[in-house]
Parts: sequence; C-alpha cells; structure tokens
Amino acid sequence: MNGNRFGRLFQVTTFGESHGEAMGCTISGCPAGLELSEEDIQEDLDRRKPGQSMITTSRGEPDDVSIKSGIQDGYTTGTPIGLVIQNKDARSGKYEPFITAPRPSHGDFTYSAKFGTRNWGGGGRSSARETVNWVAAGAIAKKLLAREGIELKAHVNQIGDVEAPEVSFEEIKEHSEENDVRCAHPETAAEMQELIEEYQEEGDSIGGSIYFEAQGVPVGLGAPRFDSLSARLGQAMMAVPATTGFEFGLGREAREWTGKERNDDWEFDSEGNPTPVENDHGGIQGGISSGEPIYGEVTLHAPTSIPKSQQTADWETGEIKEEKVIGRHDPVLPPRGVPVVEAMLALTLVDFMLLSGRLNPDRVDDRPGEYDTDYHPSNPNNE
Amino acid sequence: MNGNRFGRLFQVTTFGESHGEAMGCTISGCPAGLELSEEDIQEDLDRRKPGQSMITTSRGEPDDVSIKSGIQDGYTTGTPIGLVIQNKDARSGKYEPFITAPRPSHGDFTYSAKFGTRNWGGGGRSSARETVNWVAAGAIAKKLLAREGIELKAHVNQIGDVEAPEVSFEEIKEHSEENDVRCAHPETAAEMQELIEEYQEEGDSIGGSIYFEAQGVPVGLGAPRFDSLSARLGQAMMAVPATTGFEFGLGREAREWTGKERNDDWEFDSEGNPTPVENDHGGIQGGISSGEPIYGEVTLHAPTSIPKSQQTADWETGEIKEEKVIGRHDPVLPPRGVPVVEAMLALTLVDFMLLSGRLNPDRVDDRPGEYDTDYHPSNPNNE
Amino acid sequence: MNGNRFGRLFQVTTFGESHGEAMGCTISGCPAGLELSEEDIQEDLDRRKPGQSMITTSRGEPDDVSIKSGIQDGYTTGTPIGLVIQNKDARSGKYEPFITAPRPSHGDFTYSAKFGTRNWGGGGRSSARETVNWVAAGAIAKKLLAREGIELKAHVNQIGDVEAPEVSFEEIKEHSEENDVRCAHPETAAEMQELIEEYQEEGDSIGGSIYFEAQGVPVGLGAPRFDSLSARLGQAMMAVPATTGFEFGLGREAREWTGKERNDDWEFDSEGNPTPVENDHGGIQGGISSGEPIYGEVTLHAPTSIPKSQQTADWETGEIKEEKVIGRHDPVLPPRGVPVVEAMLALTLVDFMLLSGRLNPDRVDDRPGEYDTDYHPSNPNNE
Amino acid sequence: MNGNRFGRLFQVTTFGESHGEAMGCTISGCPAGLELSEEDIQEDLDRRKPGQSMITTSRGEPDDVSIKSGIQDGYTTGTPIGLVIQNKDARSGKYEPFITAPRPSHGDFTYSAKFGTRNWGGGGRSSARETVNWVAAGAIAKKLLAREGIELKAHVNQIGDVEAPEVSFEEIKEHSEENDVRCAHPETAAEMQELIEEYQEEGDSIGGSIYFEAQGVPVGLGAPRFDSLSARLGQAMMAVPATTGFEFGLGREAREWTGKERNDDWEFDSEGNPTPVENDHGGIQGGISSGEPIYGEVTLHAPTSIPKSQQTADWETGEIKEEKVIGRHDPVLPPRGVPVVEAMLALTLVDFMLLSGRLNPDRVDDRPGEYDTDYHPSNPNNE
Repeated sequence: MNGNRFGRLFQVTTFGESHGEAMGCTISGCPAGLELSEEDIQEDLDRRKPGQSMITTSRGEPDDVSIKSGIQDGYTTGTPIGLVIQNKDARSGKYEPFITAPRPSHGDFTYSAKFGTRNWGGGGRSSARETVNWVAAGAIAKKLLAREGIELKAHVNQIGDVEAPEVSFEEIKEHSEENDVRCAHPETAAEMQELIEEYQEEGDSIGGSIYFEAQGVPVGLGAPRFDSLSARLGQAMMAVPATTGFEFGLGREAREWTGKERNDDWEFDSEGNPTPVENDHGGIQGGISSGEPIYGEVTLHAPTSIPKSQQTADWETGEIKEEKVIGRHDPVLPPRGVPVVEAMLALTLVDFMLLSGRLNPDRVDDRPGEYDTDYHPSNPNNE
Repeated sequence: MNGNRFGRLFQVTTFGESHGEAMGCTISGCPAGLELSEEDIQEDLDRRKPGQSMITTSRGEPDDVSIKSGIQDGYTTGTPIGLVIQNKDARSGKYEPFITAPRPSHGDFTYSAKFGTRNWGGGGRSSARETVNWVAAGAIAKKLLAREGIELKAHVNQIGDVEAPEVSFEEIKEHSEENDVRCAHPETAAEMQELIEEYQEEGDSIGGSIYFEAQGVPVGLGAPRFDSLSARLGQAMMAVPATTGFEFGLGREAREWTGKERNDDWEFDSEGNPTPVENDHGGIQGGISSGEPIYGEVTLHAPTSIPKSQQTADWETGEIKEEKVIGRHDPVLPPRGVPVVEAMLALTLVDFMLLSGRLNPDRVDDRPGEYDTDYHPSNPNNE
Repeated sequence: MNGNRFGRLFQVTTFGESHGEAMGCTISGCPAGLELSEEDIQEDLDRRKPGQSMITTSRGEPDDVSIKSGIQDGYTTGTPIGLVIQNKDARSGKYEPFITAPRPSHGDFTYSAKFGTRNWGGGGRSSARETVNWVAAGAIAKKLLAREGIELKAHVNQIGDVEAPEVSFEEIKEHSEENDVRCAHPETAAEMQELIEEYQEEGDSIGGSIYFEAQGVPVGLGAPRFDSLSARLGQAMMAVPATTGFEFGLGREAREWTGKERNDDWEFDSEGNPTPVENDHGGIQGGISSGEPIYGEVTLHAPTSIPKSQQTADWETGEIKEEKVIGRHDPVLPPRGVPVVEAMLALTLVDFMLLSGRLNPDRVDDRPGEYDTDYHPSNPNNE
Repeated sequence: MNGNRFGRLFQVTTFGESHGEAMGCTISGCPAGLELSEEDIQEDLDRRKPGQSMITTSRGEPDDVSIKSGIQDGYTTGTPIGLVIQNKDARSGKYEPFITAPRPSHGDFTYSAKFGTRNWGGGGRSSARETVNWVAAGAIAKKLLAREGIELKAHVNQIGDVEAPEVSFEEIKEHSEENDVRCAHPETAAEMQELIEEYQEEGDSIGGSIYFEAQGVPVGLGAPRFDSLSARLGQAMMAVPATTGFEFGLGREAREWTGKERNDDWEFDSEGNPTPVENDHGGIQGGISSGEPIYGEVTLHAPTSIPKSQQTADWETGEIKEEKVIGRHDPVLPPRGVPVVEAMLALTLVDFMLLSGRLNPDRVDDRPGEYDTDYHPSNPNNE
C-alpha cells in the first residue's frame, strides 16, 4: 500500500502509527534559501496537538518536531527535509477489546480485512495522529506562500446544528484562535462549546465543518482538466480524516442558482485588467485560479470512538458484543482540524505555484544570475 | 500544462478542443484478454452526446469512436488503446465577440491569463466536450468492473429546488434512462423537465446534482491516507466540469449527526464475516472500501453560457459591454453529466482494483499458468 | 501494462502497433506560445522513416504527421498536442509462421507470455515503429531547447568492428546527414556502408553504436539522487529499442582511469565563474549538469529479424522448426536510430528545463507581466 | 528539488546528508505479513558500512538501523516503514578549504550553482553516504523477492585494468564475500587488492566495475516501451554514485556481434514451454523478462576525493589554488558498491513484481480468501 505521499513537485512522504515509536515525514521539493527553524513548524503543531483544551483528547503529546536534514545555518538547502516527532504518551491497553472486534465505522475492520493484520494500538496508521505530519509539512508550505503574498486561514463554521454567520477573512485571522472551538464568531463559538460539552457528557460526539479561505493567489494556478485546482483541492481535503464532503464557492447551494444569478460579470481593476464584480465562483474558473479569494468548506463527521456502548462482532470468537471505547478521544473534530485543513490547502497551493513556474523550484532567494559567488549561508564570511 | 492524465495503473491521457479537428484519448493499463469493440464504447458516448433531446445543446455530433490500437481480433492485447473521435459540427464564428472579452464565470479569462492565448472556439480545451474522452475510457473501465461483479450507476437527483426522493439502486438502473432528465423518479423527472424548460425560455440556465452508487465493490480498495478511496473519488468528481461540491455517505448532512447516530454497528453476514448493520458510512471506512455500496452526490452549477445579456470587459478595446452567448449550449448539466460521473467513478474503481492486486494488470482471462499454448485470439485455429 | 508515457512535466504518451491503423502520441506540458507546424515535426520524421536508403527496410511509409489539437494560428496553446501518423504499408502475411513460434531474441515470446496474446503483425507494439512517436515528440522538445540556446546532435560512431575516430560537435552537425550511415566521419562511413552491405547480402545483420552530444545546457539540471540527469538519461536511452548499453563521459573506459587522471581541475571562465579545465566528466557532476557539453554513447545490438534460417519452437504444434524472417527489416539499427537517440536526449533535457524552472511551464513568449492584453495570436488585430 | 524517491509501487523516499544528524528512508508499498526485523536490514548495511577493511574509508559508523513504524509483532503491517540511521562520526572541519572552492569532478560546484548554497560537510547530500538508505530499503526488497524464488547477487569484476574471468552465479554467492574487494574470483581479488593499495599509497584512486545477476525472475516483468525492464534498470543503476556506464547482456560488446551470432534459438523446456538455447540476450527480450537470468555490469569511476594535490578555483576569493582532500575516503568504489548495486536491482525487480500482479500489493501471506479471522499477529491467541 502506498498513499503516504502528497504533492507532485512539493512532495510530502509520511510514516508513523498512533502508538508507534515516532511519526515522521520527508519534504522534498522545497527550494533552497528559505529561512526555516523548528519553531516555525512548532507553532502550527501546537495548534493541532492533543490536550490543548477540555474539548480535545487528554492524551499528552508535546509533539516536538526535530529537523534531521535539509537545513544549513538556518536556511533550507534544496535537499530533502527529514522531520521526526516522537510519540510519548501511548497507552495501547485500552484497545485490547477491539483487536478482533472492530469499532463501529472506524478503519479497524477495513485495515484488518485489507492487510490481514493491523496496528491496533490507538488506531495505528488509521488514527488522525498521522495529521501531525501534514501540519508540519504545511507549516513549511505556508512560509513559502507568505513570501509570495499568499495568505490562508480556516475556522470552524458549524458544529451540529449551530452554524456561524458569514465572517470576513480579517475576522477569521483575528478571532479564530481566541476560543477553544476555533470559530471566528465569538457568540457562535460559545454556543458551539456548550453543545460539544453536552454531547461529551452523554458519552457521544458530534459532527461539524470548517471554512477555509486563501487570499493573494495569483491568476493561473491549476492544470485542467484532471488536475484542476478544484480537483486537487478535492483530493487534498477529502484525505482529511473523517471528511464526508468538500465544497468550494457556492458549493452544494449552487444547485439552486441560475446561471444569470451565479455568473460573475466582468469589470476592470485599477490596472485595467478584467476582474469579476463578485466572487460567487470561489476563486476558480475553468479549473484555474482567477485571482479572487479561494474559499470553501469541509464537512467532518462525528468522531467514531465514543464512550457510549456500541455493538461489535468479534471475528475470533464469533460473538456479538456491546463495547465502549475507553481511549482518550476528541468529542468533535473541527477545532483541531483547522490547522490540518490549512495545511492541505497550503500544500496544494505551493505545489501549483511550483508547477506553474511562479515559484522557483531550486531557490527562493532573489539573488540574480545562475550562480552567485557572494552568497553562501555556510560561509562565515558571507555578506 | 499537464492535467490531461487520470489514473495510476489504468491511465487515461486525453487531447482535444471543442472546435478542433478531433478529440482523443489513450488508455494504458487495460489488461489483455478483454473482449472490446467500438460498440461497447459507443453506447455510453450516445448517452453523453449533444442533440439527444430538447434540453441539450443542438450541436450535431455523432461522436463515433474509432479504435486505433490495442485490440486484436476483438480482444485487448494489453498495449495502449488509442481512441479518436472526430469533431464534425463546429461553428466558431459565434464566439468572436468573446475572443478578448471573457464570458462571465467561464474559463475564458483564466486560460487566456495563464497561457497568454487560448483556443477560443467553443471554449476550446475548457469546454465540457473534453468529457467525451472520459466517457469513452470509462466504458472500458465499466466492462472490466462488470467482469469482477462491480456495477455502478448514476442519476439526476436535484435540479434547482426540485429534489428527487431516495430511490433504490434497482430503480436507478431501471428508470434513469427513461426520461431526458435522467432522473430515476418519473414524477420528479417531469417536474424537473418543466423547470428546465422554464429557465431555457427565459434564456437562463439552472444548477443541479447527480447521485451515484457502486455495488459489489470488494473490501480493501483505497490507499490511506492521501490516496484513500474518498480522496481519489474527490479528485475524480471535482474534475467534472462545473462541479462545486462532492459528498459521499451522509455528506454535508454529517455535520448534524452524533457519533452514536452515524456509527454503524457490526453484525455477522451469512459467511460469518463482520458486516455493518447499516451503511451511513457510504461504503468507505478509514479511507478503504468496506464492502458496502459506495454512494454519494456531485453538485454541478448552472451552465455559464446563457443567451441572457451579461456584462463583460474587453481587454483589447478597454470597453465594458453587454453580450449574449449565442452558441448552442445546455440549459442544465446533470442530464448529460450522468455518464460522465459514472465514467469517473469507474475509472477510479478500476484503478484501485489494479492497485490492490484484485485485478490482474497483465490479463483478465482465466486461463491457468504463466503461459498458455492453447489460447491465441490471433490464431485462426485457436480453440 | 503501462510504459507508454515518458517525462514528468513534458509528458509524451504514445499508442500504436507496427501493422495497426495508426501511430499516435499526445504531448502535454509544452508551454504556450511556441511557433509549431507539422513541417517542424516532419523534418525529423523523414530522417527516421523507412525506405530512405538501401540499408534501411524497404517498407514504404510516408510517415505524414497530423496535428489534431494544441495549436492555434501556428502557435501552441499550452494544452495537449495530439499527433496521429497513419500506417500505410503494412503486410502482415509474412509473419504468419511466427504467430505461435517466436522469432529468436525478439519480443514475440515475452509479449505472448505476459499477455497471453499479442499483436503479431510486424512485431505489433514491440516493433521499433513505435519510435516514430518519440521522434515526433522529440522534434517539439528540440524547438523549445533551441529557443534556450541548447543544441544537440548524434551520429553513428561504430558498426561492427569499424569505429569512427573522435569528431567535433561541429563536424557532427556538418557531416552526419551526408551519408546513409549517418556517420560524421566520411571515410569511416564508407567503410561502415560496405560492412553493412556484406552482412545484408549474407542475410545477416550487425550491431553498432550512436554517439550523442548536447551543448549549451545550463548548470543545474538534474535532481539527485534517483532522478539525476545521468539516471534519467539512462532510462531514456535504455528504452531505445535494441539498446544493450548506455555510457556517458568516459563511460566504460572510466574503469581504468585513476582519480587524478579523470578529475577535471577548476579554473575561472571569462565571467569569473569556476569552470572545469577539461570535460572528462561528460557534463554531469554529482548528477547535475555542469554547464559543459553532455556526451555519451548508446550500443544497439544487431536487428533480430534476419533472412538467415533460425531455430524456433512452435508452442501450438510442439514442433522445433527452422524459419527465415521474410518481412522488410533493417540490416543495422544505428543509422535510423540517430534521430531516435536525439529525441530521447531532447525529451530528457526539456523535462529538466521545466522541472528546474529554467523554462516557464505556462508560456515561452517573453511578454512581461502575468497577463498581457496586447498579444493574442487568435486575434486578427493582434500586433 | 525532488529526486529522493525510487519506485512506483514499492516506493523508497530518502533524506539525509553525510554529516547531518541522521539518514533515513520511508518504504511504502511493502505488503503486509512479511517477517521483518532490524537484523534483516543490518546484515546488508554491514556489508556497505565504512571502516570494514583497509581499502575502505576509516570513518567509524556503526550504521545501526532503527525501525520507527510499519511493523507489528515482527511482521510488516502494509503501512509505511520508517527507518532512521544516526550519523555518529562526522568531522566536517576537513572540508573547510572547499566551501567556496569546489573539489574537482565532485558535486560541490553543481550543487552550489543550482541551489546557491549547499551542505558542504562531507559532501552533504551528494555524498555516497546516501546509499545507506538504498541498502536498507533493498534488504526488504530482497526478502520479498526471496519468498518468490528470486535470488540476486553482485561482485566486483574489474578494478583498473585487472579483470576477473567469467564466474558462475554459484561462485559469486560462494566467494564474493570472502575477500575485501568482493571479487568472486580469489586470485583476481588478490591482484585487485594489490593494485588498489598501490594507488592508495600514491594518494590516488582507481575505477572499476560490478557484475550483477538475478535468477528465478519470472517471464513477463517490464512495461515496454519507456518502462521496459532494461530502461528502469538503466535508471536504477545510473543513479548509483560515480556510475558512468550500464550494460546488460552482451552490453557494449553487442556492437560487434551479428544478428545470427547474438540471436538465441528456441527449444522446449521440460514442461514444453519455449525456452532459449542460450542467454546472450541477458534475460530481457523486447523490454520484458524472458525467464532467463538477468545479468549486466555497472562501471564506477575512480573516487574524486583524493589526497593528491589538485587545482581548484575559489569563487569567494577569486584565487586559483592547489588543495588536497584530507577527509576519509575510499580509494576505490566497487567493493562497497556491491550491496548498493544489489539493492537497486532488488528495488527494481520488486517494483515490477508488484506492477505485474505477480506479488500481492496488500499482503504476502498465503491465507485464503479476502478476509481471514484466524490470523492476526497482534492477537496473542493467534494460531
């Protein structure tokens, strides 16, 4: 089985199981000359890490990242960046009842059926712990994008039936990290928090969704038809654990709009280039970025591991039995999913920036010429 | 720009523009020994072709497919299958007003901005005409899947605000081709038809959606995490022209379900294997097929080319002007999109069947041994 | 089976069998704005085509190429270029003795054993006729490279035991097309011609080799380690039909050189950049182009289809029999292999030019800015 | 830059620099159910490791491999296998003279010119230290191949002008590890050793070559044309550091053979299948394995880092200077290259075994059916 690699030019390759020794990923295709430290990556890892609030799993993982290669004197060298994150707080004992009796709607059965075995501790490879790798790689992608004037951000816009009103990109940047739910609308966040706690008390869990937006994306990203920007975003977001839906622009609502209503007329921008009057198209036209903000939503179903009793079938004993999942689990996924969605958005965009030649695949420093005798970060006399 | 290839082991590579000389695709990775004729492919092409009813474009394309390679004596040889479909009824004159003044929300602007040029006749490469290639390739994929007991079908389940009630797979197979809308619920189909005609008369267009389902998919397809079955279906479906949303299982609705509600308990099937009691998970668990039917929905926005007057900005003259798109266009996309969605589903599944080793990549005939002296379709004395 | 695609960003996908209806290929990843006509491609096809001299097969194929897509008003549009070349002079009858009795050292047996069938007419997919596609695609690659100041050329440097002395790049360009053998050293060419005719008269064939060289390649192409320039050239050249060896720089001779002898000292060029004093390294250091000419050799074994009687084993009848291959075949491969080797060299280099960002993947015209309102080849008023 | 991934279904992704913190690789696509321990991998690493004899570098690296994921209870789980190997004995100080003055014919200049920087300690990413990752991954590939009856082995067949006579596969297996040179012909090995020591004393180095052979390869591996077995072997072997030539079968010698001489007649084997009388074709016909042993040779040039004084050009100071490379380096590469060549051969073959469906990509255990309730290595009661 493969499936552990994302990206064509900016490639991320991951390994690791929830209760294994370590998680890790290798990033190749990152241009040389990018300033990069472990702190740059750690910041996003801290947003994703467990135990950060009452509504996340209590597993205690510091998620300290260690860079093993690809950096010299604080700059990337253009060669593969190896990252390792140790697993510290794994307690597999709690999963023993489920070794041969799969948890409902989890990957237990399908992994075992496919491979004839599986790493059962904490979900093994099927655990969302894997996304620690994605967020680490995504942090590097974000740094590259920021250099090119591309900013992106996500927030939680629905939990159960509590839906946030539309908020601006500025509001998302300002407010989404102010509360544990990561909803940029404070009043809604409070309501969501309450709802989550209710389900948590009942031993149940609840679904929700994440809104994402990217600004500053240049015109021209996307390789229609099979590799259009929307198709590759679709793959990226549908890979996020527990995702059951991806929408961009009007999304599902577009079913009820007429062409006249949805079409965005053209006018000229201040530089005399055609620019759409509105952005009902969500920043992508004909599979290629239009220069307008790219926005969309991802639906995440409720966590499947719940304390409530559920029926399972033990293939070893032939018994039908009722079991409770005792491990430490999140009652809701979107709050910790926000940095994951941002990471997948960043990884998708940086790949297209490289594919379209808008980002130099060899080096990002702005030194002229094919070869520069002046610049060498490895040279102590370098000026 | 690439973007014209789909699939990892079952690879489809396409070319062609709406008003160019011909469309074509090359299929590689189709095992040897499959019985295949042009008629097998034509059947699906006829379901997609223009001019088939009052609610499709009146462009007259017979869409006759010609197989150029990869077949001998009626069987595939395991080598690349070259297909060519001539374009017959192209009238580019109607697009002249839009050469330098992009149609609203179409790919005109983004293609021109990316490439500094574009094939403007009928939308060129950005036209949905490209999907004739997908449907042709998909027909071959379907034949392979049928051999393995996998059946799949789609129908139109919403147009504007007219939504079809849930129908069974059997009903879809029986009824979806009975009406021009391709909705398997006859009464709803009639309502949809009426609605479409209304918008058509107004010179407008309308959005809608397609429901798809696959049965008989074995347990174990999908390569989590980035290449999970849901992620690759996401890419496949989001590549369909005009798609703004992809959902599987409960889709967007999963936001409001609790874990207890959505989780599918386990019981034993008649052979003593664990099987889920329900299928709220949509046939995919942990990114891998569970053996249950795979189902979902795709949202297609309203066609952007409408006779109603719209505002555009001519970058050559600097003028803002009102224009009507005079070409022959569909007032709604899902009816002709049904075979396209089926094709992308088939291409995704057959690729995973090969990737998982459940389908022999070299040959599909069931003759024993590495080498069989008896069988040669090229041998007239073959028995 | 796949294997019909070459290149990562500049992708060539081929189809066709020797005695099928047509050969064809799709090129994707060619930037927009390149002037391109069928004549540009035809020139190289004519150098490869059969029947051009007494020492090539007498099969009469005009090999006229038809461009089906990707071009508008004489310029590429950045979208896939579909090419089709009809097969005109196929006479399969002569191969009937070999349907179930494989020709010695040909692909007859391995294709049949792998697929349980094969297209037996003229070698089907295993025939070197396939290289017509490579040469067509290579012609486009050469045009792109020429724009960037990269020139490449090959000639025949050995046939049997007749070896040409070293000749300069200028001599290769001037003399290699002056004789039927395509050897740039006229006296050696005459000797080679004589030798080939001798073997031809005996009903036998003979091996040989091709020397290739590229000049003007910028420093920095190649992605060590697995995708180093030498590794990808190795793949490209070893794919050429009948190749049994690939060497670059000193090649096999490097076995006997010491480090001191082979190492190229550094000096400064006129611009003050380090440049090697000699080029024993063959233009590639550490897997990356050094800016020096890239050169090497490819060995092609003798054609396997010979009029001389050979022993085969008929798996249908169980008989051992002596057979002569009556078809029209070349007595030696390098003369027609020259444009094929050039094509593979060009395809490899253009891919790395794109991968390294030295060639803009979207467009090659040198207009400034992201978007130019002035230039549209499709616009009759364009200036 | 990418270039750190090898394989299509059996994928190896590497990271690490010579004097960095650690080397590492991730293997994905290894089927579940293979018994695998660190010892299995260590054995080959010990054959490659530095300091094993007088004719290898004296750098002291234990090269202990640590498996981070993908294994449970001693069996692979089908999920990515993460391997890390710490670097222990790095002394970068010796490379300071070369930070801005490239070593002759090394990758110093090309890496710096491409990336505007490089990891200069010990050659950084361009060092052959990277092959520790290849050998680790190759050890897993070998285990899989052995299960399928495929055996492979290499030995040193030429150093300088000392060439070994032809030896059998059995002799290679028996004798190649008996001497430090890894030449299976003991008398030649002694001569080679003497020659190497001579050059070593002079402060120089010398080139050489490796012969490889694989037995038990089934008929049918290879995907002509671009991905033929010979093309992919070509890429694999040309990626080996310091390689300047790859040959299989008769290799370069095929230039002088006639078709009649080189062609291998057919007879029947004991089971009545066609089998070639000889194996001058080297186990590959038409790009596909013929069932005969696959054999060939790889030429490695002399190590470029030598104690002898050489001229370099310092781009920082503008000086031309004479420098000696003081680091610890091998005087000859083939002895330690033997396990590297074996690894690349194994990785190429296992990939084709998976691609051809001859090896199950999900699991290698021979349990029947889609799903087996009996077997779970994770289940203590498993029988």
